Amino acid sequence: MKEKNDILFGFHSVVEALKARKRKFYTILISKKRSSGRIKKIEALARERDIQIEYSSPELLDKMTHDSNHQGVVARTSFYPVQKASEVIFMIPKRETPCFILIIENIEDPHNLGALIRTALCAGVDYILIPKDRSVGPSSTVSRSSAGAMEHADIYMITNTASILRSLKEGGVWISGLDADGETSLFDADLTGNIALVIGGEHKGIRPLVKKECDFLLSIPNKGTINSLNASVAGGIAMYEALRQRR
Amino acid sequence: MKEKNDILFGFHSVVEALKARKRKFYTILISKKRSSGRIKKIEALARERDIQIEYSSPELLDKMTHDSNHQGVVARTSFYPVQKASEVIFMIPKRETPCFILIIENIEDPHNLGALIRTALCAGVDYILIPKDRSVGPSSTVSRSSAGAMEHADIYMITNTASILRSLKEGGVWISGLDADGETSLFDADLTGNIALVIGGEHKGIRPLVKKECDFLLSIPNKGTINSLNASVAGGIAMYEALRQRR
Repeated sequence: MKEKNDILFGFHSVVEALKARKRKFYTILISKKRSSGRIKKIEALARERDIQIEYSSPELLDKMTHDSNHQGVVARTSFYPVQKASEVIFMIPKRETPCFILIIENIEDPHNLGALIRTALCAGVDYILIPKDRSVGPSSTVSRSSAGAMEHADIYMITNTASILRSLKEGGVWISGLDADGETSLFDADLTGNIALVIGGEHKGIRPLVKKECDFLLSIPNKGTINSLNASVAGGIAMYEALRQRR
Repeated sequence: MKEKNDILFGFHSVVEALKARKRKFYTILISKKRSSGRIKKIEALARERDIQIEYSSPELLDKMTHDSNHQGVVARTSFYPVQKASEVIFMIPKRETPCFILIIENIEDPHNLGALIRTALCAGVDYILIPKDRSVGPSSTVSRSSAGAMEHADIYMITNTASILRSLKEGGVWISGLDADGETSLFDADLTGNIALVIGGEHKGIRPLVKKECDFLLSIPNKGTINSLNASVAGGIAMYEALRQRR
């Protein structure tokens, strides 16, 4: 049976979701054994919005979150609202500033997705696009791993990545893909203007039929004997090189 | 009772440790239920060096690694050999090229330390310095999180960070610290020449008495509403900005 509501957990996720106001809150459950300044902050934010608070046993919270590290705070909320990637295509011609799009392909580890979303917000990414069936989605675990940053992000779901890339190119967006064998060094590429950065999965990178649609493939220089960087670190380096050039 | 040997686990850690030849191998244990190209590679490397292989039950491997994700491969080895940070002070004057030193202060999460070490190797860091009592050490969990990169790293232990920083400065090394409130933007700093980059802990950053010894404090620009980047991503962005400037 599909769950009707999402189970958000951990301080940062619950606080940022309350601040971002993108989800409906049904109940906030707080462990009877916890009391701190951070708990008081959540209580105050909940009171402002007339959200019911229940004080529960830690065991119930453990059970609700499948023994995740909930820090004594769990919330029943609506699911994270996502939009369709086609919306982005319509928005680009109306923008007054160049766009910076992040496309996260094939990421399997929710902690990597959380870290990438957190970094994207700091690096000034305008739109985050995630394939519906090929990557982990914006779950409560991803929100937790993003330190709550996901709650503020604008996330768009893709049904067909190659088709979206073609539409973006027609709309004047340059598509760059991060690839260990890429011919262009990240530091030699022009990342100003309308750009989309495609980040592939942890194991296989970007799929060939998506790679084919990239205007250029960027590699991160590697001075070591070890094959590659962690996916979320590699993404962070690339997004910040774009931010450096776009300042 | 202190363990006499280290318990290394996971493919990458065991393979890279065999290649790097920095540890003594006592036994390699392989799960009876596993057989793959990657297992065969380990068997071949072990045979080359006359290392004993035992085929064990998966339950024994689970127990030895406290239920870590060992991928069916566990090795009893000597501990990872570390050196004293004072060694670095002697080496710097003898170098023909500028040095790039990473100092990892106060990191509590072994996954962050592993990711930082992995990135340091890719970014061309020459020496990695870690305070003996203030940070997690180069454990087998860190090796696993570094995808085995730690096995190739030159790691030096610090007993007194402030004192080492003073010696480095006397030796002509510029000390930069990563700090959310730093006055210099990472992208405006000169990171060529002899440099050391200090990265602080996940929660409190660099300690005040260490910060005082830094020649400049670098902040990473942040365009978001969320406070900060993950420690290993922030470290990756800073190390790669140094690599970009030093190409």
